[in-house]
Formats: sequence, C-alpha cells, structure tokens
Amino acid sequence: MTPFGSFPERNIEGLARDAGVQCLEAAPCDPRRVDALYVGNFAGPSFTGRNHLAPWIASGLGLEGVPAMRVEAACASSGAAFYQAWAAVAGGVHDCALVIGVEQMSTATTEETGEILAAAGDVEREAVHGATFPALFGLIAQRYLHEHGLDRECLAAVAVKNHANGALNPRAHMRKPITREKALEARMIADPLGLYDCSLISDGAAAILIAAEPWTDNPVRVRGVGMASDRLALDQKPDITTFPAVRKAAEKAYAASGVSPTDVSFAELHDCFTVAELIAAEDLGFFSPGQAAPATLAGETALAGRLPINSSGGLKSKGHPVGATGVAQIAECFWQLRGEAGKRQVADPRIGLTQNLGGSGATAVVGVFSL
Amino acid sequence: MTPFGSFPERNIEGLARDAGVQCLEAAPCDPRRVDALYVGNFAGPSFTGRNHLAPWIASGLGLEGVPAMRVEAACASSGAAFYQAWAAVAGGVHDCALVIGVEQMSTATTEETGEILAAAGDVEREAVHGATFPALFGLIAQRYLHEHGLDRECLAAVAVKNHANGALNPRAHMRKPITREKALEARMIADPLGLYDCSLISDGAAAILIAAEPWTDNPVRVRGVGMASDRLALDQKPDITTFPAVRKAAEKAYAASGVSPTDVSFAELHDCFTVAELIAAEDLGFFSPGQAAPATLAGETALAGRLPINSSGGLKSKGHPVGATGVAQIAECFWQLRGEAGKRQVADPRIGLTQNLGGSGATAVVGVFSL
Repeated sequence: MTPFGSFPERNIEGLARDAGVQCLEAAPCDPRRVDALYVGNFAGPSFTGRNHLAPWIASGLGLEGVPAMRVEAACASSGAAFYQAWAAVAGGVHDCALVIGVEQMSTATTEETGEILAAAGDVEREAVHGATFPALFGLIAQRYLHEHGLDRECLAAVAVKNHANGALNPRAHMRKPITREKALEARMIADPLGLYDCSLISDGAAAILIAAEPWTDNPVRVRGVGMASDRLALDQKPDITTFPAVRKAAEKAYAASGVSPTDVSFAELHDCFTVAELIAAEDLGFFSPGQAAPATLAGETALAGRLPINSSGGLKSKGHPVGATGVAQIAECFWQLRGEAGKRQVADPRIGLTQNLGGSGATAVVGVFSL
Repeated sequence: MTPFGSFPERNIEGLARDAGVQCLEAAPCDPRRVDALYVGNFAGPSFTGRNHLAPWIASGLGLEGVPAMRVEAACASSGAAFYQAWAAVAGGVHDCALVIGVEQMSTATTEETGEILAAAGDVEREAVHGATFPALFGLIAQRYLHEHGLDRECLAAVAVKNHANGALNPRAHMRKPITREKALEARMIADPLGLYDCSLISDGAAAILIAAEPWTDNPVRVRGVGMASDRLALDQKPDITTFPAVRKAAEKAYAASGVSPTDVSFAELHDCFTVAELIAAEDLGFFSPGQAAPATLAGETALAGRLPINSSGGLKSKGHPVGATGVAQIAECFWQLRGEAGKRQVADPRIGLTQNLGGSGATAVVGVFSL
C-alpha cells in the first residue's frame, strides 16, 4: 500500500505501480508468475483524464500480456475487483492474480469532486436535487440517531477512535488524534455530520496477490467472500438505517467461511461517514440495531477493545482514495493477521473481516480472512 | 440487442434494461435465477454523467441483490465483462450470469467524444500530441499498406462488404450499402483512412446469459475464451501491423477449445477501422500477414464467401457503442449458430469466433463458440 495522502504531482499509473511493486517484492513474486491483473478504480477518467488503466498498469509492472481489466463499483470498486479475482482463482481460471485498487482525487477541485462522487448515486432522484454524498449520509445519520434515541456523541466516538488508530498508521493520510470536543464542535457539513464525521479525499493505491496455492510460510487465507447489490436511491429503500446489500454479502461470506459474527476478532469497515461504521457493525451482526453506538462509546471497538474496528484508522483517518479502499482494507487485515501491524497491532487476531460499501449502500463486498 | 443508433433522448440504464429484458425473455429466464450481473461499459460517466451503473441496471431488471459490477477495458469492455462472467460460471462461483454491454455516446459533442475516446490510448505519448484514434489507426493503416505493397482498395473492400452485411441487419445503425467508388472518394479522415474506413459513434446495448448448465434445447456453447493485454502506446510496439494481445488471446481460446483457425466457419472481428479487420484476420491465423487484403478483395470474407467476416455489418455498419460491442459480437455469433440470422445467415455455421479489441491493441478478448 502506498501512503495515502494528497499527491497531485504523481500520475495514477505511478501510484498503482508503487503499490504493485511493493506487493510483488513483499510476496516475493516474480511478475512472470502473475497471470491476471484486476484494477479497482472508481473514476480515473473523470479525475485524471485517463481511461483503459488496466493494461497501462500491467505493462508498467512487467506483467506482459496478462488479462488486465478495470472493475468499477463506486467506492466498492476494489472490493469488487477482489471479488472477481477471487472468483477466477477459486474457480481455477487463474493461479495467481494481482489486485490493485487505486484512485487519484487531488487533481480535481472540491466542486468537481463533489460532482464526480455524486454520479455514484441516483443522479435523477438525488444528485440533480443537490443531494451530495454528505447530504445522503446526513439523512441516514439523522434517521439513525432518531430511531435509536441517540445524539451526536456516538458519531464523535467513532471519529475519535479512528483518528487515534490512524495516528499509529504510518500510511494514514491524517495522522492526528482528535478529542471528543473537537469532533463535536467542528463546523457542520450535513447535519448531524460535522467535518470530523466525513472521510478524506485522498490519493493512493493498495495491492494484494491472490494465489490458488500457499505462496509463503504464513499466507493469509480467504475464508469467505460475499458481494451483493441494492437500489441506488435512498428513497427506494424501506429503511435507511440498514443496508440490505451488506447483510446479504455478509450472509454469503459467513456461510462460505463457516464463521459467525462472534468469531470475528477485528474488522475493517467502510466508514465513509462515522454513521456508516455504526450501521455496518450492526448489519454484520456484531451488534443488534442501535447497539453499535453504546458499544463504541464504551470502547468495545477501540484498538484495545473486545472487537477492534478500523485499526488502520479507517476511511476517516487513513483516507479514502475511493478505488483503493477495498484492497487497502484487505491489506490491513493481512498485516493484522500476520502480527505485522506495528503500534496498531490488535491482540489475538484470529479472524479478520472487511466490508466495502459502494454509494449509499447499492454495492457491498464482505471478506473473511484468517491465517 | 437493442437497435444500434443515435438515441440521445434515452438514458443509459434504459438502453441496458431493454437489452437485458429481451435477453431474459428470449431465454426464457426468470430474473430470480440470475445470480450475477456484469456490465461492460467504457465511459458512461464521461458520456452521461452516471457512474456505478451495475446496481442501477440490476435493480431495473429485477435482479434483486445480485453481485453487480462494471468492467472496463476500453472498446473491449464488454468482451472483458464476458470474460469475467465466463470465469465465474466456468469456475463454479455463479450458475447463471447476465452480461450486458452498453454505451451511450450521442450525448457528447464530436469534440468531447474524441477526447473521451483518446483517454483509452496513452495520453502522455499520444493524445496530448493530438493523436486521436483515427490518427493512430491511420498510422497503422499507412504502415500495413506500405509493408505489404497494397493500396486503399483493400480498405474499401472491407467497408463495402460490411456495409452490404449491415444493410441486411435490422439492428444495424447504418443500413446503407456503399460502392467501392463511394468509399474511395469519401473525404479523408486520417490518411489513408477515409470516412467509410471509420466505424460509427453509436448508442446501444446487448446482453447475453451465461449458464453452467444448458438452458434450452439448442444452447450455444462457449468452447474457449482468451484475453490478453499489451502496452498502450503504438511507439512501444515493435511492429504496428500486428497486435500481440490478439495473438495471445487467440492462442488461449484455440487451445481451450481444441479449435484451429481453419475450423472457424465465420467470425465477428473488431473493425473499428477497416484496417483493423484485416490485421485481426491475420493475427487470428485465418490468413498469413498481408494476405487478408487480397482475400477480402476476392470475396473470401463476404457473406457468401468461404469465411464470412462481420456478417452483422461489424462496427463499421452495425455501429460501435463502445461498451456494447463485445457482447453484440457474441449475440451475432449466437444467432448465426442457431440459424436465426435472417437475411444475413451464413451457410453451414459450425464454429463462430469473436474478437474484441481495446484501444490500439492494448486489450484483446477472443471467444470460440459452437452449438
């Protein structure tokens, strides 16, 4: 994984190549053994004016001639790329696939970025009326707090926790612990979401190798994967405080792995906004509806808690280069399971889970991993 | 397959839905039996301002909750989507996958379209210097004619043949036979490519179902598939009159199917420009280098010839809604093999081949099909 940050002077292929080279060197894996490349990228053409990224990245890495394609599923683009690579390797079509998630966003103005991101929602029903993603998740948060009789404290608790974790992650975009007061007093973005309830606009890339046979003495195993979809627009969902796609994807991943929510030791969840982490933790069965909030306030999901969530810092503090996020979550899982997460290492990391969300819940990818 | 044409008043989801509904009805297949959706689309966000197309299309078709993702590989986007769906079904991950290729291009001005398409090439080495795709294929054609001591007659022969075929295809964008004189005398676009050497800017969609088990009494079987990549820029290729990615993809597809070039009864080739059909026919082993030209002039690849190429009219006359092309090629193959191609039916259609190209040869997907 490259550091996440703001790198407008780089180009998108270079970012992807950096992650790919690091991954191949760490494995170690001769590029000639890789037989397919899957690139997760949401909006490279809009952000960078470059399309057809996959063969560009493949040739830069010396993966001569391999099948190379880009997979897009909004913020779950590299989760979806991982899903495809896993399907091809699990099914015996490829032996060793490289998956790279990448996005470069600093090339666009804030206004352009808002418009590019809004295209991942329902443009006719939402974006044309001015509903940006902070606005959509503001509605979700408003309803979540209302339904469960909560206030903004639980959102601030997610932000404080993830900033504390991110401060320990050398690859995080914003390595800055924040206080509860700072989170609560920050300027409002989309009520009840303040500045610190929103994830970052970042550049970066992450890469993983998926192989049919163990590659090293301590490989991380893909225990189960699930992917699901839903309608784009919030007004088409009967309840906006739960994401059916996450529930379906989790159901498949749990069934495939034989793992239940109580078996999970730690998780990387898609906290594009603080409320999304709480809802994900409930949809994944870690907590019953409304209970992720008090659990977070009580420190249960902190690094030293019983179920650490977003040890990496999450999208909130590590950063959210959209197309890179799904693979970056898996990279964190990989490091945690192998005990290589340094100062943010969780205790007794037996089973890790990743959850990658696209749009306001229209795509979800869940993975379960262990040594 | 929807008719290909200019439909600026439609939206991209509606086009995709039309093809999907037709496909499900023709199978027939209850949407609830479909367990994954793969959408091939090149530049929906740039052309239409809509991204995250796959769940949008899935929910419009009633494919509730299925894994849904978009695959992009320039003009081979839906060839790549087909490749992924095939890999997932062949490997046992899915039982029945719907693949839809779609593009809407009439929403953009000619200038915008040129820029959006150019992003599929090497922007730094080519597009910034003004090298649009007609310019790149103009260089290729120039070299091809020079190497083999040919003139523009062979290019015109491809155009005349494909327009004659397209005139028989009710779904073709331009159902207009042209004469050799008309092709040769048309205004020059990028020497030696005249207006009739260039494919069309079209809107449209095509859909296929891939199932693990035979669905009907006369299913079309996927005998072999191959996909490969290459560098983006022409100046990085030692010889621009051959595409190594096509050769590699064909090698894999032939090996998997046990079919050799001489076994192929008819083929749908990626004639984004007339010269591309000639080069593809050589890279696929139908003719030795330089020999596709005289064979085409002699009528060998005509509808009544020994190896009909582009019975559909090809990208040249049927149209080229970029992301729809790969699946539309397979749809033509399906109809030909089942004897359902009407006035353009080829004689004795035992084995059909499709070849989908991305950029100036950086992606290639080849499929071999039979009853």
